[in-house]
Amino acid sequence: MLDKAPLPHGMDLAHENFAVSGPDLILGGVSVRAVAEEFGTPAFIYDGGVMRRHYRALAETLSGFAAVHYSVKANPLREIIALFLAEGAGVEIASVGEYRAARAAGARPEQILFAGPGKRQRELEEVIGEGIGEIHLESFEEAERVDRIGEALGKTIKVGLRINPVPSAQAGAMRMGGKPTAFGFCEEDLAETIARIGGHAHVDLVGIHVYGGSQILDAQGLIDQWRHAIGIAAETARLLGRPLETIDLGGGLGIPYYAGEKSFDLATLKAGLPDLAALLAADPLLADARVVVEPGRFIAGPGGIYVAEINAVKNARGTRFAVTDGGMHHHLAASGNLGQIIKRNYPILAPARMNDAAVVATTVVGPLCTPLDTLGRDVMLPELGAGELVAVLQSGAYGPTASPGNFLSHPPAVEVLVEDGRAHLLER
Amino acid sequence: MLDKAPLPHGMDLAHENFAVSGPDLILGGVSVRAVAEEFGTPAFIYDGGVMRRHYRALAETLSGFAAVHYSVKANPLREIIALFLAEGAGVEIASVGEYRAARAAGARPEQILFAGPGKRQRELEEVIGEGIGEIHLESFEEAERVDRIGEALGKTIKVGLRINPVPSAQAGAMRMGGKPTAFGFCEEDLAETIARIGGHAHVDLVGIHVYGGSQILDAQGLIDQWRHAIGIAAETARLLGRPLETIDLGGGLGIPYYAGEKSFDLATLKAGLPDLAALLAADPLLADARVVVEPGRFIAGPGGIYVAEINAVKNARGTRFAVTDGGMHHHLAASGNLGQIIKRNYPILAPARMNDAAVVATTVVGPLCTPLDTLGRDVMLPELGAGELVAVLQSGAYGPTASPGNFLSHPPAVEVLVEDGRAHLLER
Repeated sequence: MLDKAPLPHGMDLAHENFAVSGPDLILGGVSVRAVAEEFGTPAFIYDGGVMRRHYRALAETLSGFAAVHYSVKANPLREIIALFLAEGAGVEIASVGEYRAARAAGARPEQILFAGPGKRQRELEEVIGEGIGEIHLESFEEAERVDRIGEALGKTIKVGLRINPVPSAQAGAMRMGGKPTAFGFCEEDLAETIARIGGHAHVDLVGIHVYGGSQILDAQGLIDQWRHAIGIAAETARLLGRPLETIDLGGGLGIPYYAGEKSFDLATLKAGLPDLAALLAADPLLADARVVVEPGRFIAGPGGIYVAEINAVKNARGTRFAVTDGGMHHHLAASGNLGQIIKRNYPILAPARMNDAAVVATTVVGPLCTPLDTLGRDVMLPELGAGELVAVLQSGAYGPTASPGNFLSHPPAVEVLVEDGRAHLLER
Repeated sequence: MLDKAPLPHGMDLAHENFAVSGPDLILGGVSVRAVAEEFGTPAFIYDGGVMRRHYRALAETLSGFAAVHYSVKANPLREIIALFLAEGAGVEIASVGEYRAARAAGARPEQILFAGPGKRQRELEEVIGEGIGEIHLESFEEAERVDRIGEALGKTIKVGLRINPVPSAQAGAMRMGGKPTAFGFCEEDLAETIARIGGHAHVDLVGIHVYGGSQILDAQGLIDQWRHAIGIAAETARLLGRPLETIDLGGGLGIPYYAGEKSFDLATLKAGLPDLAALLAADPLLADARVVVEPGRFIAGPGGIYVAEINAVKNARGTRFAVTDGGMHHHLAASGNLGQIIKRNYPILAPARMNDAAVVATTVVGPLCTPLDTLGRDVMLPELGAGELVAVLQSGAYGPTASPGNFLSHPPAVEVLVEDGRAHLLER
């Protein structure tokens, strides 16, 4: 039953992002075992240093071309937002709840961009009243709401237009444009859209926002999207007859989750930027625009892991099951129920048995009374027993906030930030 | 663009479960429009009378054959548990959180059955310490934990064995047995399992629990499952050499969600029961056993609706979109992201435009920045605008607790119980 096998999926990522000492996976100078002992399980453990490292690699790649705004939806914990703010990021938000989280983390109003297809009256009132960098409009109803609020406050509100690009300009695992979607205004309706928005006296159209997809691992595909977006920006500026202030290229940079996926190649991205920069410089209406890129998963994802303790091990009809205290109620994406068509395994390993060469195919499930609560099928793990730990890597983004936390009334996962040998509990 | 069309999917269910007065859908004597005006949107509205009616229809069908235990996971709101307790139900729980909710709702310890594949030490300690009717064991580790707790407290704990039936005895949209799963002990290992469990001095094996699947709409299929379960019960009693106290047949009764699905036929179920009752009566080791059925969705689902307000309407590449203030963060199942392979629409209608004959295909989406946040594709709705309401029917079970409520930091849905013309806010 025990085989010598190739390195289990995820072992490469563990060594790339974290450290290993003896049998232990180490985050931020502390072993996962020690964090689990101190704070309990299930736990999301975030390595602040790894988040900074991924942020810096991207910011350095984009240096001189674009500013980075952290997409708060990826992980809205106050201390994680604060970490990226301290690194120099702005933020991008999708709700007034995220606005409050960003402000509580120390973001200044002018650092905040607000997108999202269903902004409500009370949300717009609050962010405009408190101050906001730019609102990215996604419907004519929103334009009217912003105009009326601006009129009531005697303010003119800076907005960008979120543009849904034509199908040929899409990429990524989850396309957000091209096909009919509710996101923004269709590229082919640009002239009519600008004319209608221009009729609002308290709305100052200063930018565009083009977001073509998420979880993109192909750097050249992203470059092609950005080139297309710059074309939309040029046409927008021409129709407006004045320079643009902001060109928001969206986020979309992906991270590898499944066996065989390769990390997004920042070198390829960097090699493509001079051509894009030349396009901008050549257009007097774009030359002074501020270009924004808004990653979430790419900078927050690799630094986080989800740790659960095994509660029971059983063999049923030829399958070895490890039943853990964690599951889809904390980590819906890892269970394959957040947009995946076919269940594939996130990288899963035994963080206190890193040196075990012998592994056995183990299906890792959670405590919920549904077969959907499966974290990994036939994962190559050491022969673990009750009381031992499993860890799901690439879990720093879209973890607890993207999961049905109250399903079956189990307690929430603890969340712990580790950095420089210190671990402390985070409050959501 | 406006067509005369067949009754939109769900209109039949609306008339079957609720009332319609003029343009308004009425729950518990109050119009949905009035509830939305008083309590705001998005809202889950529960009609207590409809829940009672479905409970009573099932309890009457099973009268003389089985007792009904409400499966708390379907909707753990205290007042909904209390409603079913007042009707005479027991409860079935899957976590200590559900135990607390059931006790807070007034359940006596002996009315509570505890199942679930990953019961933790501290959960077992709490429910055994406070008192519990029966614990349904799903692993040998659990048996050992229960035995040690019993020993420490000087108690013998009543348990049932959860049995995972052989593949031939399965049915329903989500099979829970047959294939390798983590639920319970395999039927084919019954003798060995009983022998091992029997070695624990503080564990009193008094029953079995067989659960073959959920969302079963075929009453004859359920009868066949139950017959199989009775066979397992007979074999268990024979191996034990003494009568069983409890035979838990599980839940699994489904409700129609998608166009073309028919309601579970209680008359067919009733017609199949005398044969099963005769099987039990003929076996002296089963004749006095208490048979339990534990529905959740079947009794709580039809009485609830989810109501959202339209925020914007747009046409994009030939598709009409209604962007609402509600979405997958409150109602993951309706978005098709809770186990569905292919997105199909829950019944959706306009609860304040019930008489509109003209309808237009409308894709109903939520406010989240992901194409997953789609409540219904090409739903035949009146030509609605911003400020108008849409309602998703069959939403009384697996709503907010089965949804990623913190996704994008939007506020939770309000939950309102209506009955006899009175509506009041529920606290989760």
